[in-house]
Amino acid sequence: MLIVMRNDASEADTARVVDYIKTLGLTPNPIPGAQRTAIGITGNSGALDPALFARFSDICEAVPISKPWKLVSREVKPDDSFVALPGPGGNTAQIGAGRFGVIAGPCAVESPEQLMTAARAVHAAGARFFRGGAYKPRTSPYSFQGMKEEGLRLLAQARSETGMPVVTEIVDTRDVELFAKYVDVVQVGARNMQNFALLEAVGSIKKPVLLKRGLAATLQEFLMAGEYIVKNGNYQVILCERGIRTFETMTRNTLDLGSLPLLRRLTHLPIIVDPSHGTGDWRSVPALARAAVAVGADGLMVEVHPNPAKALSDGPQSLTPENFAKLMVSVQAIADVVGAKL
Amino acid sequence: MLIVMRNDASEADTARVVDYIKTLGLTPNPIPGAQRTAIGITGNSGALDPALFARFSDICEAVPISKPWKLVSREVKPDDSFVALPGPGGNTAQIGAGRFGVIAGPCAVESPEQLMTAARAVHAAGARFFRGGAYKPRTSPYSFQGMKEEGLRLLAQARSETGMPVVTEIVDTRDVELFAKYVDVVQVGARNMQNFALLEAVGSIKKPVLLKRGLAATLQEFLMAGEYIVKNGNYQVILCERGIRTFETMTRNTLDLGSLPLLRRLTHLPIIVDPSHGTGDWRSVPALARAAVAVGADGLMVEVHPNPAKALSDGPQSLTPENFAKLMVSVQAIADVVGAKL
Amino acid sequence: MLIVMRNDASEADTARVVDYIKTLGLTPNPIPGAQRTAIGITGNSGALDPALFARFSDICEAVPISKPWKLVSREVKPDDSFVALPGPGGNTAQIGAGRFGVIAGPCAVESPEQLMTAARAVHAAGARFFRGGAYKPRTSPYSFQGMKEEGLRLLAQARSETGMPVVTEIVDTRDVELFAKYVDVVQVGARNMQNFALLEAVGSIKKPVLLKRGLAATLQEFLMAGEYIVKNGNYQVILCERGIRTFETMTRNTLDLGSLPLLRRLTHLPIIVDPSHGTGDWRSVPALARAAVAVGADGLMVEVHPNPAKALSDGPQSLTPENFAKLMVSVQAIADVVGAKL
Amino acid sequence: MLIVMRNDASEADTARVVDYIKTLGLTPNPIPGAQRTAIGITGNSGALDPALFARFSDICEAVPISKPWKLVSREVKPDDSFVALPGPGGNTAQIGAGRFGVIAGPCAVESPEQLMTAARAVHAAGARFFRGGAYKPRTSPYSFQGMKEEGLRLLAQARSETGMPVVTEIVDTRDVELFAKYVDVVQVGARNMQNFALLEAVGSIKKPVLLKRGLAATLQEFLMAGEYIVKNGNYQVILCERGIRTFETMTRNTLDLGSLPLLRRLTHLPIIVDPSHGTGDWRSVPALARAAVAVGADGLMVEVHPNPAKALSDGPQSLTPENFAKLMVSVQAIADVVGAKL
Repeated sequence: MLIVMRNDASEADTARVVDYIKTLGLTPNPIPGAQRTAIGITGNSGALDPALFARFSDICEAVPISKPWKLVSREVKPDDSFVALPGPGGNTAQIGAGRFGVIAGPCAVESPEQLMTAARAVHAAGARFFRGGAYKPRTSPYSFQGMKEEGLRLLAQARSETGMPVVTEIVDTRDVELFAKYVDVVQVGARNMQNFALLEAVGSIKKPVLLKRGLAATLQEFLMAGEYIVKNGNYQVILCERGIRTFETMTRNTLDLGSLPLLRRLTHLPIIVDPSHGTGDWRSVPALARAAVAVGADGLMVEVHPNPAKALSDGPQSLTPENFAKLMVSVQAIADVVGAKL
Repeated sequence: MLIVMRNDASEADTARVVDYIKTLGLTPNPIPGAQRTAIGITGNSGALDPALFARFSDICEAVPISKPWKLVSREVKPDDSFVALPGPGGNTAQIGAGRFGVIAGPCAVESPEQLMTAARAVHAAGARFFRGGAYKPRTSPYSFQGMKEEGLRLLAQARSETGMPVVTEIVDTRDVELFAKYVDVVQVGARNMQNFALLEAVGSIKKPVLLKRGLAATLQEFLMAGEYIVKNGNYQVILCERGIRTFETMTRNTLDLGSLPLLRRLTHLPIIVDPSHGTGDWRSVPALARAAVAVGADGLMVEVHPNPAKALSDGPQSLTPENFAKLMVSVQAIADVVGAKL
Repeated sequence: MLIVMRNDASEADTARVVDYIKTLGLTPNPIPGAQRTAIGITGNSGALDPALFARFSDICEAVPISKPWKLVSREVKPDDSFVALPGPGGNTAQIGAGRFGVIAGPCAVESPEQLMTAARAVHAAGARFFRGGAYKPRTSPYSFQGMKEEGLRLLAQARSETGMPVVTEIVDTRDVELFAKYVDVVQVGARNMQNFALLEAVGSIKKPVLLKRGLAATLQEFLMAGEYIVKNGNYQVILCERGIRTFETMTRNTLDLGSLPLLRRLTHLPIIVDPSHGTGDWRSVPALARAAVAVGADGLMVEVHPNPAKALSDGPQSLTPENFAKLMVSVQAIADVVGAKL
Repeated sequence: MLIVMRNDASEADTARVVDYIKTLGLTPNPIPGAQRTAIGITGNSGALDPALFARFSDICEAVPISKPWKLVSREVKPDDSFVALPGPGGNTAQIGAGRFGVIAGPCAVESPEQLMTAARAVHAAGARFFRGGAYKPRTSPYSFQGMKEEGLRLLAQARSETGMPVVTEIVDTRDVELFAKYVDVVQVGARNMQNFALLEAVGSIKKPVLLKRGLAATLQEFLMAGEYIVKNGNYQVILCERGIRTFETMTRNTLDLGSLPLLRRLTHLPIIVDPSHGTGDWRSVPALARAAVAVGADGLMVEVHPNPAKALSDGPQSLTPENFAKLMVSVQAIADVVGAKL
């Protein structure tokens, strides 16, 4: 924490702040300047709250210096984290630490036929993880809300048949045990990124967690949400950039690919990209998927539906199996250029 | 729904879309134009999903016409809704339908002394509802997380002593019964505005709900979140504007007072303003509170702490009891001008 | 400037940065800490550019301390600035330093009849300044672009008849002399707030300038734009909050009334509010105008058109003369409450 | 335009609107529905202004259907536009229509040595166009403002020596003739994207224009700004995505790569990406440059400085010549994958 005094603060004003810092058990380091005095604070073990200084009217600003995240920080753990699970054909399905993993499948589980058709198609095209929503968070209470536990059972069947570990979203702390039973990777969706009760709950089970960035979440808040999970002893966290909300409405979201190289420097956690939600239009998905590989992501999450026109949820952003298979060819080619291994 | 064809669509292209609309059991109404053809769709009972038309490449745009919200709409219920509870001194504590209600208290319940001091002070200054957080959603897992059930008990004591109904935030569906037992108005916080499981849960108990607007929630999403609660039979919902997230970072949030007159036209639900979170700086709170009265709000939610410098949460935005009492004088004066009754 | 070293920086790394600071002619003040070392820099006369330190990979962050604005700062000039001009009936038309001034008139000058009708109406209702656009910045090149010099002449006629000084927008540096001839207050519009050539140009003539906040301008950039004008010796600058661009599209802009109390603390310049552009809907204008008075603005800028349905520009946000007259009654009443003098 | 009546509008209310549409010389097409009546309007030659209907209180919404842009639309001109100029070694320097062009050079022209060193380096690495700012739009009036005409002369020298056409930013309509004399591609910067006087001015000279997207410009506004230039007969316009302003502040801007595939569908104009401003940090520039190629851009604009630590402007986002040369290798490899020809 650095305290910046107002330029009209007297020596006595500064002395009062210095004394107050000492009462907190910390060490004040005054830095007299031409315009104004600053006071560096040392001796704290974590980030200090600027609130502690809100009442001194002679203070111009209290600038936090320490970063509030710890366990997710690359400064604490320099080597890449990753998630590895038993995958199709006895191979490992891995995301992170040099391995690029593709998660694909329909937005929602709708029926056994739809799900198995999708699973076989994405498996054949090279996806290593299978996705499908059983519990759907929908803006409208009148929209399809998902098949719930029956959907989880169908996902488990798809895993049995194809070998792909399944990824699906949890929306209620009361469902944690159910998910622990059926699911391989538990997804926390964008709208629940700061549902801290849910973060605590998924942190307490020993399953990998796919954490999606909130629509208005800063990267700092995104990392802090990861910290909630890791703090409970669960280091298997995958971050997922899926677009943020901006003033632009011609695209569903604004995919923030610029966050990738920055997050890579800040954290050891693997980072993947969801181009389907990131744009909301299947015609733009392949281009953004290729960009995600090129920018250095550890993986992709892509919506694929056997018949997008009949999808009960998010049809406009779903690829057909044919288009997904075509996309995978260029994903592989760009991965080769940037040195990622599918 | 209005379908707009591309300007190079042929008559046969249009005919295919017309036929498809009929297969949905709806009525197509083609409108030939100089530049392009549009097709109005009628016969639907609610909003149609543009996804239904995503696969026709000859379609330029599918424009939704019907609003997706129903039960919260003023078109459906033209008269104002309100929340009324037994209040201090045998009077009714009311928000909405011409009555302006002030909710005040500390950000967090910290101790019996802190809470009772705050309760007496805000009661004396004219607040009708008492607030205090027992379960605190915090960005950092290392911050104070609240006194939990013990906090709820202390709030109930404060109600016993002062007569003020208490408002406090719920963060987990598993706590619904506990809240039903202790609390008068259940608050759903900004970060949980689209925690649909929680909305369903609070909609199912017969308690008034204070619903805060999400940081990145459009007014449409805000109304749809209200619809989730009302749909479960609970019409006692108060909307609370508390600032949205924008590019401006010198204020904690951007208080969207322009939403008030618009929401008033769209919905019958009462709407209040939280100037404390809306700005994040106690020095700006009184000015914004006055603006909220002037813009036509049905009430205020203000953070007041006996000793803001020692607050465990959000000290910088809390008023002292003295400043709150001063504020209430001008709130009353402006309420008189705009015809609101405290 | 405060330099924060990485937590794995060695003493030698820190020494290199310390030496570099000395080569810049500045004084390094190292502050060793438990987690990491920080270095406070003193001896600089203005804000330092963080770019100077971008190449040291051992540096975690370079935090600017000094504010980049000077002449507009309240720290430099503690008393309120204001703009005062000869006004109607031999009275002074003033904005700032305790006087609340209302600027009203049509969005665009359209014809002599339209302009004079509007001028008489707003004058009768209590406006002290008259506005009307002669050069219109329009998103579409196919929209009405204004009456240009003929419009300036009509505005000058309106001043002759009513005594109200006129405010109108300049859009091109080549028009500065023309504006100096006809206009009392030169407006720089939101889309030109960072047209620095234009800011320099209007700073060089001795006319008051009304500077509107850009749609995506931070308050810091807003103040720096004011600094451009003041630096050229022109202290007669009025800042105007007119709404910013956010994700919300149901209102034309998001009026940032929370900027007012903060700007008041940071700068001595007067600050007014434009509720017409701030919401884009005449039905919301009176409520937001009242809120602007209550929040402590120094004035209002309101669009009034004799026949909004026939306006060539921005009809939907224009008040009728009758509604404007009604609004002025409540503006006066709230000004009385907050101690502003019309 | 589609007019949507309120659900409580009577037949007489609708009849009044129908009659009004006829008075405008247009054709009303009423579409009675279960919930409410809509009225499609035909017979208009361009986009109608919703303002025309603002006064009917029985109207719920006026929905524009026609797109406001024309000449830049791919519906009007289906084949790709491009900019081609005499380039280095007698080859053509081209952007668009299948050719990928790289523009590189320092943020600002600082000295003959700095400029020539940069020009030789980027030429050697494969850039076809050279950039450098002679007139710098700076947030602070106290920052370096550029070498002005002397800078233009130095750029012309760099062209003579290397053969690369030069791209540089214009900031004042009064400089148009000067730019016509020295410059090959005239750049309109982000802060001037809606400086319509400047757009008109550059549209009137027969030079290619590089138009940068404004910080808060929607894609619709971006296209309309292009329309201003094209309308004046100048079809040689290159659009440049350079990041928008969002709530995220850890990156300088949010590079909106998702705009690329959408713009490609909407317009025939070539679209390039500026990853340097898009992130603001040289460490992220190569990753974003690669992503821009992968997403389908027609070119790149990259800041390269011989000695970024000593740059007078934007040093932190400039690549060294070595890093730029390395980047060009992977740009070429990804261009091969997506079928773009450097």
